[in-house]
Amino acid sequence: MDFASELQVLVARAEGGIDRLLPAASEPSARLHAAMRYSMQAGGKRLRPVLVLAASGLFGDRRADPLAAAVAVECVHTYSLVHDDLPCMDDDDLRRGRPTAHRAFDEATALLAGDALLTRAFAILAESYGADPGLAAALVRELADAAGSRRLIAGQMEDLLAEGRGGADPQALRFIHENKTAAMVEASLVMGGLCGGAPAGAAAGLRDAGRQLGLAFQIIDDLLDATSDTATLGKTAGKDARAGKATVVSVHGIDAARAMARELSQGAVSSLKGLPGDTGFLCSLAQSLLSRTH
Amino acid sequence: MDFASELQVLVARAEGGIDRLLPAASEPSARLHAAMRYSMQAGGKRLRPVLVLAASGLFGDRRADPLAAAVAVECVHTYSLVHDDLPCMDDDDLRRGRPTAHRAFDEATALLAGDALLTRAFAILAESYGADPGLAAALVRELADAAGSRRLIAGQMEDLLAEGRGGADPQALRFIHENKTAAMVEASLVMGGLCGGAPAGAAAGLRDAGRQLGLAFQIIDDLLDATSDTATLGKTAGKDARAGKATVVSVHGIDAARAMARELSQGAVSSLKGLPGDTGFLCSLAQSLLSRTH
Repeated sequence: MDFASELQVLVARAEGGIDRLLPAASEPSARLHAAMRYSMQAGGKRLRPVLVLAASGLFGDRRADPLAAAVAVECVHTYSLVHDDLPCMDDDDLRRGRPTAHRAFDEATALLAGDALLTRAFAILAESYGADPGLAAALVRELADAAGSRRLIAGQMEDLLAEGRGGADPQALRFIHENKTAAMVEASLVMGGLCGGAPAGAAAGLRDAGRQLGLAFQIIDDLLDATSDTATLGKTAGKDARAGKATVVSVHGIDAARAMARELSQGAVSSLKGLPGDTGFLCSLAQSLLSRTH
Repeated sequence: MDFASELQVLVARAEGGIDRLLPAASEPSARLHAAMRYSMQAGGKRLRPVLVLAASGLFGDRRADPLAAAVAVECVHTYSLVHDDLPCMDDDDLRRGRPTAHRAFDEATALLAGDALLTRAFAILAESYGADPGLAAALVRELADAAGSRRLIAGQMEDLLAEGRGGADPQALRFIHENKTAAMVEASLVMGGLCGGAPAGAAAGLRDAGRQLGLAFQIIDDLLDATSDTATLGKTAGKDARAGKATVVSVHGIDAARAMARELSQGAVSSLKGLPGDTGFLCSLAQSLLSRTH
């Protein structure tokens, strides 16, 4: 199967899992469940769940089906976007080509739907891996650490504070990107490895590949925000510059940013190639992210 | 030891655990961790962690130390208050006698601190009970279900919607209170039972006691809002009536509300008395909640 077809298969598998593992929109509270589904079904690249599934596949999905872990990761990612779009944060109207949750519903509903997606992620892990509680506990720990106050949320907080200061130095910017973006990409590969039954030695390679891939992904995001348009992106373009936000582009310039993304992506590929199994799909994915247009 | 002294010991134990299990305010992001600690250290009755500790004690804390579970429950309760106080929700300035988190910091910081407390709750469970992953997974599942979109958050969502409609019928009000308040009280007793190594048969009794105790607690809250003042409560009094909110008082009247609280509290005591161990402290706690003034 070529890369594009394999990607399509994994995205479809993730979306099937999302539909199955979220409460039905008819269950009370119906409005809350509708808002959770609205945000989760808005599409997007499904990068993180695809990484979970692909990483588990490297080890032959030996320990457990990684689908629930993939859905849990996407729940956490989506909650972070829903809260990030709120008026008190980035105040954004558009996400994945559709109105943001607080525009489609209202602020309180978006707040609660984000809270509920975060909580659901942990319920999914505890329920789905109940037969292998050692795995369930390891997955909960990995996800809670990546999404916690030392990583994902620390990155968001420092990002906001840097915006208030009118910029960030290269070191502060690296802290923001390693936590706001790379933490969840790392966790996706590591959680896939856990479901796959990866040997303990493989975790470091997965984590390093995830870190570099996450950083490269963020730089491309910054480049697209600076150089693309809203229709192509499906979210508001040019908002970093308008907000006076520190990005790799504003700190290092477009050419240096492109070179950094390339180098990080190559670093991720090197780490991936040190892992067992057929890493062809993951290496192609790393390369394809360099040339993405949205 | 008399009831008041025993309560004081358990509260002090819970507060020690809170201090130990939250990231230091000096760790980056410092502002985020300061806001988490501000909200968690604001005091309050510590009802839920005390219930976790006392329920585990009924069974001699046989399986594991319940302190981390108690702290996790308080993290989730506090996050729900921080988000509930935000301008898009209840828009409140005062909580536990101090400015609410978004007043002491700002809206974005309060939002993120709430998110971080919720996430930290699950990290605490996975870390602290890592040596007994079956227990860790069971605790995560219990807490995530109680705090999830079918229970705690469903109750909050329906509460807001009822306010928008200008009231709720008795059945809708019961749904709100069973989920917004009783779910976490139930989970506190059940999680304590899990740490205590309670036999499977004890869970139903703990859950029933928690449900009745939680409902009684909510009715007293409604009564205090209607009859007490802001200085005594440490939070804004009279806001239910001003918001046109459906409460047990507005739906059933003060006298009927008092009778319902008494009956529920007696029901909780009956359920508790069916449990093994010395239930004296928990029964006294149930009775003391009836006469609380804040």
